[in-house]
Amino acid sequence: MTGKMFGAPIPRTEDERLVAGRGRYLDDLGAGAYAAAFVRSPHAHARILDIDVGDALDVDGLVAVYTHDDLRGPMAEPLPLLIPHPAIRDGRTPHALAAEYVHHVGEPVAMVVARDRYVAEDIVERVRVDYEVLPAVVGVAAARRADHVVHPGMSDNVAARLLQEVGDAPAAIAAAPHTLELDLEIERSASTPMEGRGVYARWDAADAMLRMYSSTQTASGVRAAVAAKLELQLGQVEVVVPDVGGGFGVKIVHPWPEEVMVPWAARLLGHDVKWTEDRREHFVAAAHEREQLQRVRVGFDDEGRLLGLDVRIWHDNGAYLPYGVIVPLVTSTQLLGPYRPGAYRVEFDSLYTTTVIVTPYRGAGRPQGVFAMERTMDAIAARLGLDRARVRSVNLIQPDEMPYDQGLVFQDGRPLIYDSGDYPAALAALLDLVGWDDFPAQRERARAEGRRIGIGLACYVEGTGPGPYEGGHVQVETSGRVRVATGLTSQGQGHQTILAQIVADELGVPISDISVTTGDTRRMPYSVGTYASRGAVMSGSAVALAARRLRDKALRIAGDALEADPDDLEIVGGRVRVKGSPASGMDLGTVAVLANPLRYAFDEASRAATQFGGPADFDRPPVAPDDAPGLEGTDFYSPLRCTFASGMHAAIVETDPETAEIRILRYCVVHDCGRLVNPLIVEGQIHGGVAQGVAGALYERMAYDSDGQLLNASFMDFLMPYASEVPAVEIDHLETPSPLNPLGIKGAGEAGVIPGAAVLAAAVEDAEGFPITRMPISPSELFHLRRRFASGEIPPLRARRPAAPAPRPSGQES
Amino acid sequence: MTGKMFGAPIPRTEDERLVAGRGRYLDDLGAGAYAAAFVRSPHAHARILDIDVGDALDVDGLVAVYTHDDLRGPMAEPLPLLIPHPAIRDGRTPHALAAEYVHHVGEPVAMVVARDRYVAEDIVERVRVDYEVLPAVVGVAAARRADHVVHPGMSDNVAARLLQEVGDAPAAIAAAPHTLELDLEIERSASTPMEGRGVYARWDAADAMLRMYSSTQTASGVRAAVAAKLELQLGQVEVVVPDVGGGFGVKIVHPWPEEVMVPWAARLLGHDVKWTEDRREHFVAAAHEREQLQRVRVGFDDEGRLLGLDVRIWHDNGAYLPYGVIVPLVTSTQLLGPYRPGAYRVEFDSLYTTTVIVTPYRGAGRPQGVFAMERTMDAIAARLGLDRARVRSVNLIQPDEMPYDQGLVFQDGRPLIYDSGDYPAALAALLDLVGWDDFPAQRERARAEGRRIGIGLACYVEGTGPGPYEGGHVQVETSGRVRVATGLTSQGQGHQTILAQIVADELGVPISDISVTTGDTRRMPYSVGTYASRGAVMSGSAVALAARRLRDKALRIAGDALEADPDDLEIVGGRVRVKGSPASGMDLGTVAVLANPLRYAFDEASRAATQFGGPADFDRPPVAPDDAPGLEGTDFYSPLRCTFASGMHAAIVETDPETAEIRILRYCVVHDCGRLVNPLIVEGQIHGGVAQGVAGALYERMAYDSDGQLLNASFMDFLMPYASEVPAVEIDHLETPSPLNPLGIKGAGEAGVIPGAAVLAAAVEDAEGFPITRMPISPSELFHLRRRFASGEIPPLRARRPAAPAPRPSGQES
Repeated sequence: MTGKMFGAPIPRTEDERLVAGRGRYLDDLGAGAYAAAFVRSPHAHARILDIDVGDALDVDGLVAVYTHDDLRGPMAEPLPLLIPHPAIRDGRTPHALAAEYVHHVGEPVAMVVARDRYVAEDIVERVRVDYEVLPAVVGVAAARRADHVVHPGMSDNVAARLLQEVGDAPAAIAAAPHTLELDLEIERSASTPMEGRGVYARWDAADAMLRMYSSTQTASGVRAAVAAKLELQLGQVEVVVPDVGGGFGVKIVHPWPEEVMVPWAARLLGHDVKWTEDRREHFVAAAHEREQLQRVRVGFDDEGRLLGLDVRIWHDNGAYLPYGVIVPLVTSTQLLGPYRPGAYRVEFDSLYTTTVIVTPYRGAGRPQGVFAMERTMDAIAARLGLDRARVRSVNLIQPDEMPYDQGLVFQDGRPLIYDSGDYPAALAALLDLVGWDDFPAQRERARAEGRRIGIGLACYVEGTGPGPYEGGHVQVETSGRVRVATGLTSQGQGHQTILAQIVADELGVPISDISVTTGDTRRMPYSVGTYASRGAVMSGSAVALAARRLRDKALRIAGDALEADPDDLEIVGGRVRVKGSPASGMDLGTVAVLANPLRYAFDEASRAATQFGGPADFDRPPVAPDDAPGLEGTDFYSPLRCTFASGMHAAIVETDPETAEIRILRYCVVHDCGRLVNPLIVEGQIHGGVAQGVAGALYERMAYDSDGQLLNASFMDFLMPYASEVPAVEIDHLETPSPLNPLGIKGAGEAGVIPGAAVLAAAVEDAEGFPITRMPISPSELFHLRRRFASGEIPPLRARRPAAPAPRPSGQES
Repeated sequence: MTGKMFGAPIPRTEDERLVAGRGRYLDDLGAGAYAAAFVRSPHAHARILDIDVGDALDVDGLVAVYTHDDLRGPMAEPLPLLIPHPAIRDGRTPHALAAEYVHHVGEPVAMVVARDRYVAEDIVERVRVDYEVLPAVVGVAAARRADHVVHPGMSDNVAARLLQEVGDAPAAIAAAPHTLELDLEIERSASTPMEGRGVYARWDAADAMLRMYSSTQTASGVRAAVAAKLELQLGQVEVVVPDVGGGFGVKIVHPWPEEVMVPWAARLLGHDVKWTEDRREHFVAAAHEREQLQRVRVGFDDEGRLLGLDVRIWHDNGAYLPYGVIVPLVTSTQLLGPYRPGAYRVEFDSLYTTTVIVTPYRGAGRPQGVFAMERTMDAIAARLGLDRARVRSVNLIQPDEMPYDQGLVFQDGRPLIYDSGDYPAALAALLDLVGWDDFPAQRERARAEGRRIGIGLACYVEGTGPGPYEGGHVQVETSGRVRVATGLTSQGQGHQTILAQIVADELGVPISDISVTTGDTRRMPYSVGTYASRGAVMSGSAVALAARRLRDKALRIAGDALEADPDDLEIVGGRVRVKGSPASGMDLGTVAVLANPLRYAFDEASRAATQFGGPADFDRPPVAPDDAPGLEGTDFYSPLRCTFASGMHAAIVETDPETAEIRILRYCVVHDCGRLVNPLIVEGQIHGGVAQGVAGALYERMAYDSDGQLLNASFMDFLMPYASEVPAVEIDHLETPSPLNPLGIKGAGEAGVIPGAAVLAAAVEDAEGFPITRMPISPSELFHLRRRFASGEIPPLRARRPAAPAPRPSGQES
C-alpha cells in the first residue's frame, strides 16, 4: 500500500498557486453581486425598542433593508442548536437577525443590501435602533454570581452541566497520602484567521437551485442548515468552498446569521448577494474560545502516582450555545492525557455571558485540559520534591495496555478508548531532545551569569479524526487525469497535497496527474467537516479506499483487454502493465475509455482504445450487473472510534530579572500522529500550532471591559506574535500506527497548540519558583506576581494548599 | 413488481406545467446573455474567397465577430464523425465555421456576438463574404451521376457503402417460380419540432467550469463533444437540458456548429452567450431525412412466400456525414419487418449532395424500409391475385420461433435477434379492427355511389431501446420527497410521468411525492440519449433497478430500527410498515434520516427519527463497509440487445375521382410495445406518430431547386397537416412482454410514424388500381399518375416487370 509518495516530504502542490497570489478566496468571487452589510448591536445586552430605517431609504444604491420583522417561518426562529447534548439545560441560540434582545456587542440587528459595500456601510450608519440597555454579564465569575441573568426566562446562567465519574474520586482523594487543590484560569482568545468569514449566494430561479460559496469548514453542514432555514430540499442547495484563508475552528459554526441571511436575500431579490466580514466584525461577531476557571483536587502517593482526581470546570460559552458545549466536553474528557488518573470525577458548568459566542478554536478545549493536568503534575512534583518528568513517568499508560479504555464517554458519545501510543518512549525522546538531565547544570551556569532560566514539559493525548464518516471519490478521466474529491474543506492545511500523495501510491500515477477537490457538495454531497484534526485520518482513509476500488476496476478491465490475470498486472506511472513485461500494457486513460461502453469518436484516447477492442461478446451486457460505466471509485471511511495522537513538549525560557520579559530559548516537540503522509506538512502544522500555543500563553487575550465592550478588537490592539516571538521548533517524530484505519494515520492539525500554555507556565514557574496558575501571562503580570511572591502573598511551590473536603454533590453548586 | 401506477392511464404530471405555459425552454433562459447570430452561406456549394467584417465593426452593441481564422486547435478542425462505421468510405464533417468551402445553403460562415439579437442580426447583414460559386449537387440521381463531386479530393459522391447477405439471394431469386422488380422513392422531409435548436453557455472562470444549456436529445453527448472541442476535462462541463419543444431526432446530432461556437465564445468573452435558432435556420441549417431510391428484386412461390429478396438502396445523406450512415443502416436491417425473407441481400450507397445534412427523424430509416417491404408484399399479392393479408400471413415469423435471429448485424453492431412478438395475432387483430373481410362489400357500395375507396395495410417490426445503457438514480430526501434522475433527455414524451409511475410502484410512494429530472449531467453524468424509442425501455428499466436497490436499503434500515425482518416489511403510501400490523412503521423520510449517521438538529424529520435511535452499537462503524450514507440507489440498465416492438396499420382512403384529393376515412393501428406503463401516453405517441406518418405520406416534402435552394423553407410554404387532415386513430394494444428487461417493456416513441407512407400508398393503390411507388403523393401527382395509367404508360398492378438479372457484385456499381 505504501509507495514512493506516502511519507515523502514533498512541497505542497497548492502552494504554487497560493503563494503566487492565485488563490481564489470568497471575496475574489461574486463580481456584480449586491453587497450586504449588517447593523450590529453596540451594546452587550439590550432590548430593541424600535428600528427606524427612514433615513436609509433615500440613499442611491440601496436595494433593501431587512429586520427580524421581515423574516417568516424557520427564518424567523432561532438558529439551530447544533449539538443538542443531554448536558444542555437551556440551549439558547441567536436569531438570524435579533428579534427582541441582543446579547453581545456585534450581534446582527438589521441587514442592508446595496449596490456595493460602500453604499451598504453608509446605509448601516443611517439605520437608527433604539435600545433599552440591560446589565452586561462579563466573565465566568459574573456569570456564576448570576446577579444578572443573560437570557429571559432563566433563573441562572448555566447553559449546560455535565458530571462524569470513574470510581469514587472524592473518597480516593480523602484516603490518599497526599492531596492538593489548585485553582486555575485560562483567558479568552480567538482563532483570528487571516481571512474572515464570507458568504456569496446565487439563486437560479429557473433551476430553483441555490449555489452558495462560503468561507466555511463544513460545506455539507452549511448546506443542510441553509436548506432547512430556507425550506429547500437538500438537493436544491449546492455549497462550494473556495480557498479559505484559515479557519482554526471558528468557521465550523453553521449557519452563521449572515450565512442564512445572504442566500435568503439572494433568493428574495433574484440577484447575487455577497457579504465579506471585516476585521472588527470578526472580533466582535464571530467566536472566541479558551476562557475557563478550573478547580483541581488530586490525591496521590509518595511517588506522585495519581489515586484520585476531581476536576471542576466553569466554562464561559458566551451569549449563545449553538456549538459551545463541545469545548468543555473536550476539556473534561481529554485532560487525562497519557495518564491513568486513578478514580476520576469531572464536572463542568457551561455559562452564558453577554459576550460573543465561544466555539472550538484549534485545540478546542484541550489546551485548557492539558493546562489543568500538567499544572497538577508539576504541583505534585513540587510537593513531593520529585523530578517532574519522574512524576509523569509513573503515571503513564504503558504500550502493553493499549488499547486503553479510560472508562468515560467521549465527545462523540462513544467510549473513550486510546487506540495506540508509546508514551514512555515519547517521554524518553523528549527528555533526550531537550537535554532534561543536563538542565540543572545549565541553570546553574545561567544563575552564575545573573540570568533566570526555567524548563518545563507538558504531555497530551488528543482524540483526532472522529467519525461518523468522510467519503472519497476518485475518477480517471479518459485523458488519464485523476480527479479526487472529498467532502471536507481545506483552510490551507495541504489537503490537496496529502490526498494526492495517498492516491498517487494507491493508483500508481504521478502526483502531477492528480487534482483534488475539497468542500464542494456537487462533488461529494455526504460529508462532515474539517475539525478535530480529522482531515488526513478521515478523508485520507476515504480516498485510499476509493482509489483501491478504482484500482480493482482498472485492473479487471485492463486484464480483460490484455487477456491477463489482474493479479499479474501492476500500475506504474499511470500505465497498467504486465508484471515482468512492461512493454505490454495500456495507459489508465485508455482503461477509462474501455470502462465506458459508449464510445465517442472525439479524441485520441478513444482512438487509442480501439486497438484493445477485441471480438465483442454478445452474450454479455455492455455494463455488467452491479457494475457502472466509467473508471471511478467511491468509498466511505467510517471508523469505530477516534484515533489518539499524542505529543510532549518541553520549553526552556528565560525571564528577565528586571523587566520580567519572557523569552523562549528552546522549544522541543516529540510528536506522534501515527504514520506520516508528509513530514513537511506535519512539521508545518506543528510549527503553526506552536505559534498559536505561544500566542495563547504569552500574548493573545480578549480584553473585555465590564460593559462587555471588547477593547482590543483590532490587530492594532490584539497582541499577535510576530515571527520574532515564535521560537524555532525542534521536532522528533514517533510513529505508532493507528490500528483503526487503512493507512495507520492519526490527526496532526491541532497538536502543536495544545500544550503551549501548560509547558510555558511550567517553564516560567521553574524559572521563578512560585506557582503560575493563570495564562496567558504578560511581563507586567509576571512582574506583579514576583511582588506578591516576595511579599508572601503567594506561597512557594512546595507549600500549596492541600485539597479541601469533597465538594457538594453535583447539581447543587454553581 | 407491478402495482397500482404501472399500466394506469394517468394524465401526464408535466402537463400541469407545460400546458399552463410554465415550461422553461432554452430561450426562456439566459436573460442578460450576449446574443449570437450566424452569417450563413447563401449558396449550396461555393468556395469562400474573402470575408470582410469592416462594416460590422462600428455597430453599437457589437461584441465580436468570429470566422474560421479565429479558431485554433480542435476548434479549427472538422466536427467529429459521430458513428465511424466501417461502411464509411470517406467521412466528411463540417467545421464549426466554414473553413474554405461551403456545401449547403445555411452553412455557418461567421459568428456574430452582440448585446442583443436585434443588433446581432443587423451585424450579420453587414458581414460581406465573397464566394466562388460551384455546381450544386441536388438529389440522389445527381449524386449518383457524379458529374459534379461535392467534396474536394473525392472521385465520386459515395460517402458509405454496405452490403449484408444471408444466403444467396440472387440465386434464390433466379430459381424462384415468380419474380418482381420494383423501383421506389421516398422524398425528403424533416422533423420540424415546434422549438428549434438553441444553446446557452455560461463560463465560470473562477471554477473553470462550463455550464451549458442546450435544446438537445443528448446531454452527455453534447458534454463529451464540447469538452473535446474546447479541450476541457469532462468534469469541467455540465450540460443541462431544459424543457425541449420537440426533437424527433434532429436534436440528437451533437455537436452542432452552433453548439460548440456558443460555449467557445462564452469562455473567450467571459460572458454568457445564447443562440436560439429561428425557423428558417431550422429548415436550411439543421437536418432532414427520408430521401431514398430503392430497387427491390424478389423471388416468391405460388402462395407469395418469399424465397429471395435483394434490395439496393441509394440514400441521400446531404452535405456531411456526422451521423447520417445510421439511417440507411436502419433501413437495410429493419425493412424485414415481421417476415422471414428467405435469402436476403441488401446493399446501400449513402451519397453526398449539396443539401443540408440528413440525420435520423422519428422512424429513422424505418419508414423507408417498411415502404420497400410492404410495397413488395402488395406487388406480390397483385401478381399472384392473392389477398394482401394472406400473402403477409404466410411470411410471418411465428411466436414459437421467438427469439428469432434474422442473421444480420444490427445497427448497434450486435446480432439482429427479435426478442418476442406474436405477429399472427397482431394481423388477426388488425383485420378484425379494420373489417378487412367486409371491405370488398364496402367498396362495391361506394363504387355504386360513384366513389373510389381503397384499403391498405402495412406491418413493421422496430428495434427499440438499443444500449449500451442508461442509468437511474433514486433518492429519498429526509422530507420524504423522492428525487429520480436519469440521464436521457425529454422532448415532451412524458418521461416525468412514466418514470414516476415506475418508481411509485417499486417504492410504494405516492406519485405526487416524486420529482423526475432528465438530461442533466450534474445528476447523471453517464448517459446515452433519447432516440430509437429507448426512453421507457432504458431509463424506465434503470430507474426501476435503482428504486429496487433503494427499497432494499430502506427495508434493511427500517428493519434494524423496528427490530423486524426486512421480509416482514412493506412500503405503502411512503411509509414502511410491518405487514399485518400497519400501525407499526416509519415514514421513508425518517428512514432517510436514519440512513445518515450524521444527524443535524435542523428539522422535524431528524427529531422524528430520534425515537428510533435505540442503544448505539459501538462495535459497528456508523457506515458499514460497502454501504454509504443516505437513502439513495443508483443502477444501470444495460441490455444484451434491443427489444423489438411491432405494429400493423390499416387505412381506408377515398380518392376524389375528379380532383384526386385523398381523404383518410379510417386509420387503424394494432400496436405491441410490450407491457404498457401508461396507455394514455402510448396512445398519444401513436397519435402523434400517425400524424407525422400521414404528413410524410401526403403533405410534407423539401422542395429543393436544382441550385440547392430550399424553396419552401417556412411554415407558410412547408405543407404541415392541420388537425383537420389527421385522421381519428383506432388503436388495439397487444402486449408481448420483452424478456430482456425487468419491466417487460418495449419502445413506443416512433412506432406511429413508421408504416404511414406504406399503408397510405397501399390504400391509394387499392383505390386507383395502378402502382404507387413514390411518396409523398399529392392530389396533383395522383392526378398525373391517373393520366399516365390511362395512357398505358403505367402498367396495371398485375403486370409489373419481373426481376432483372442479378446486379453486378457490390463495389463495382454506384
